[in-house]
Amino acid sequence: MKLLKDLCAVHAPSGDEAPMKEFLLSYISKQQKTWKVKPELIHGPEFQDCLILAFGNPRTAIFAHMDSIGFTVRYDNQLVPIGGPDADTGTLLVGEDSLGPIECKLVLNEEGRAFYEFGRAIDRGTGLTYKCNFRQHDDMVTTCYLDNRLGVYNALKVAETLEHGVIVFSAWEEHGGGSVQYLTKYLYERWQIKQALVSDITWVTDGVHHGKGVVVSMRDKNIPRKSYVDRIIAISQSSGVPFQLEVEGSGSSDGRDVQISPYPIDWCFVGAPESNVHSPNETVHKDDITAMVSLYEVLMAEL
Amino acid sequence: MKLLKDLCAVHAPSGDEAPMKEFLLSYISKQQKTWKVKPELIHGPEFQDCLILAFGNPRTAIFAHMDSIGFTVRYDNQLVPIGGPDADTGTLLVGEDSLGPIECKLVLNEEGRAFYEFGRAIDRGTGLTYKCNFRQHDDMVTTCYLDNRLGVYNALKVAETLEHGVIVFSAWEEHGGGSVQYLTKYLYERWQIKQALVSDITWVTDGVHHGKGVVVSMRDKNIPRKSYVDRIIAISQSSGVPFQLEVEGSGSSDGRDVQISPYPIDWCFVGAPESNVHSPNETVHKDDITAMVSLYEVLMAEL
Amino acid sequence: MKLLKDLCAVHAPSGDEAPMKEFLLSYISKQQKTWKVKPELIHGPEFQDCLILAFGNPRTAIFAHMDSIGFTVRYDNQLVPIGGPDADTGTLLVGEDSLGPIECKLVLNEEGRAFYEFGRAIDRGTGLTYKCNFRQHDDMVTTCYLDNRLGVYNALKVAETLEHGVIVFSAWEEHGGGSVQYLTKYLYERWQIKQALVSDITWVTDGVHHGKGVVVSMRDKNIPRKSYVDRIIAISQSSGVPFQLEVEGSGSSDGRDVQISPYPIDWCFVGAPESNVHSPNETVHKDDITAMVSLYEVLMAEL
Repeated sequence: MKLLKDLCAVHAPSGDEAPMKEFLLSYISKQQKTWKVKPELIHGPEFQDCLILAFGNPRTAIFAHMDSIGFTVRYDNQLVPIGGPDADTGTLLVGEDSLGPIECKLVLNEEGRAFYEFGRAIDRGTGLTYKCNFRQHDDMVTTCYLDNRLGVYNALKVAETLEHGVIVFSAWEEHGGGSVQYLTKYLYERWQIKQALVSDITWVTDGVHHGKGVVVSMRDKNIPRKSYVDRIIAISQSSGVPFQLEVEGSGSSDGRDVQISPYPIDWCFVGAPESNVHSPNETVHKDDITAMVSLYEVLMAEL
Repeated sequence: MKLLKDLCAVHAPSGDEAPMKEFLLSYISKQQKTWKVKPELIHGPEFQDCLILAFGNPRTAIFAHMDSIGFTVRYDNQLVPIGGPDADTGTLLVGEDSLGPIECKLVLNEEGRAFYEFGRAIDRGTGLTYKCNFRQHDDMVTTCYLDNRLGVYNALKVAETLEHGVIVFSAWEEHGGGSVQYLTKYLYERWQIKQALVSDITWVTDGVHHGKGVVVSMRDKNIPRKSYVDRIIAISQSSGVPFQLEVEGSGSSDGRDVQISPYPIDWCFVGAPESNVHSPNETVHKDDITAMVSLYEVLMAEL
Repeated sequence: MKLLKDLCAVHAPSGDEAPMKEFLLSYISKQQKTWKVKPELIHGPEFQDCLILAFGNPRTAIFAHMDSIGFTVRYDNQLVPIGGPDADTGTLLVGEDSLGPIECKLVLNEEGRAFYEFGRAIDRGTGLTYKCNFRQHDDMVTTCYLDNRLGVYNALKVAETLEHGVIVFSAWEEHGGGSVQYLTKYLYERWQIKQALVSDITWVTDGVHHGKGVVVSMRDKNIPRKSYVDRIIAISQSSGVPFQLEVEGSGSSDGRDVQISPYPIDWCFVGAPESNVHSPNETVHKDDITAMVSLYEVLMAEL
């Protein structure tokens, strides 16, 4: 859980993913000697703050977004949301501006508009994220930013044994997208990749429960191609890994940008379910984490 | 009307267009020997479930979307809409899951949420579509899915005499798009196609009436380039084919995805008007169908 | 102010940008002999009605949208908005149809729906724009369409001394976009351009005031990459040019389409603030215009 805890504490709201990329490069440089295949690391100005790991002869790409929700400091103590945060008055927020590190309190007024409470004015444009409070109790993990540091964690675990595949660490997923479009371009032009898995976290619902396995989402606001989802379900069924099927009418992911990019790439969302979505207390069952990693290992081998 | 009737009965909600593609491939393989020009058939993994017919040296593309609205089965008898269906309690829905064919009833609760009534639970993720009830009375045709099987029908009729042009059968139009982006890429890179017509069905309104001709839409939610629409209107005027001009502030089509694709392709929506939009009783005047085919023949020759 | 006044009077609502392109080509052909560098003019069918000016070895692109808000004539005296116009009953609107020039009155009913009052019916699909009333008082300029003819003006002023850079005059910004996607494709494929500035007009708010300098927007509805915005702020601070920082949760610009295009191009909105947004009385402080031009000169040299 050390890796997951460290990931959840990285400050990287949408548009400021560079700290996550640095964390990943540092982690990978240390760990890859223990991996089955040493990946090619692809990054630089042509990829903004994104990072691609290429293993062997890839047919399938894993997308794991690095960014988190949060707030941008405006003026008059106002905060503008990044993505869709869901937190109460009193929540601790952290960040840094020209005067140094910040730990301030979130205040919501009666209309639900967000403000900060701090001993001084904070620089305009400063990004604030939840202060991480990583907790384990029984079989559950509770912390901010399981969405999507757990998706990143999953990708790093899968990387340990991956022989053929691409892992893509993307940006801006929580706030309008903007990186998946050029990332798919690269994947398709270099390897003609036509298969994607979205390593991200979904919601506990009436039909999806903690501890019942990783979720294969048959649709959310967007609808992936049926024949691709059916193949994934068939592989999941024969894998023996516990999994659940979800059908949603709302919610979105990097899958949306894969869908509308000018490349014929199928996608499917496969990830653990959480409760307390987008709050400082996102909660996931440890068995669902295990199932997520296991199912990705199977899917990346068999797809 | 036999072809139109058969088209309307094909089960192909957004994301599951493969059955329409198979229907089209089978129809075309039988019919193309009677066509003026035998088209090149372009499809395969690089086009997901889409299909392109290329005739001669194409300058203009017809887009006709294959998918329909419908519902996805969730759990607890819940249905999630695909696109924007408009149907009453009691409407018959059909589909198929692992236990066999399904014919069930739509039930709307007081909040308008959709459920199914059936003797057993249906597999999660199963797509349901309206049961087709094709009717003709006086000069009118009434059935589900004139939107857009009539647009497909129009394209197939135009194909009979087409010498130069491309016909594109697209996917996901009713639910967020996702195929037109890579289809325009192919059209532009191979033939530098810069002109598109959207073969789709629009609404009867205060200014557009049954039996008054095919509709040339000057705008909907999206605004096509004025100079292109003006050319189409000028050709329509000199064609002698009955047509009507529409101006709308809402509604969208494959034109939207043509517009926002990274290719400089003009588009214009040209199609018959219907009443009872997105219901099981979509109704079109037969004269407007005739006018639609006639105007497309002229436009494809003169644009 | 003569140039700005002339620009504001050009009729070019979204989708009908050709008149602005013609105005620009005519202006540039006369003026470019006085410019430091004679630009390459790039336009034609591959660019619809857009226009690109290329100077030297470009690293950074200025995007200035040519189109304006307005109305499309429907039937029964109805008007459909183009973009988000904000005008009162009695506002004069101008345009031209098959019967000749039009000057009519806008009428809003109690539900806020728009109609025109004119001595005759106007052709369906005719575009109407505000009648320009250009006024100067003290240090302020008031007219319709400072958004975005002032952004175009800024680009033309910067062109006078520009040595290396691209100026892009884009289309459809006020109504759904659709040109920036293929324009970025060209910029990236030809020059690998990864830096963009959006030359557009923003709002006077609680934190941004008339006469306090050009606005560098750290975010609006979309969030640009932090490292790029930070570089622009650092250059702005050392430039000595008066500037203000904005942080918004709504509003959008050509930056959005740069962001979601399949090219890794950073963008930042830099422009003067106005009051009476999208009305016939948009108002900007002259010092903010001066600051806008000055800051662009510095940014284009130093980025």
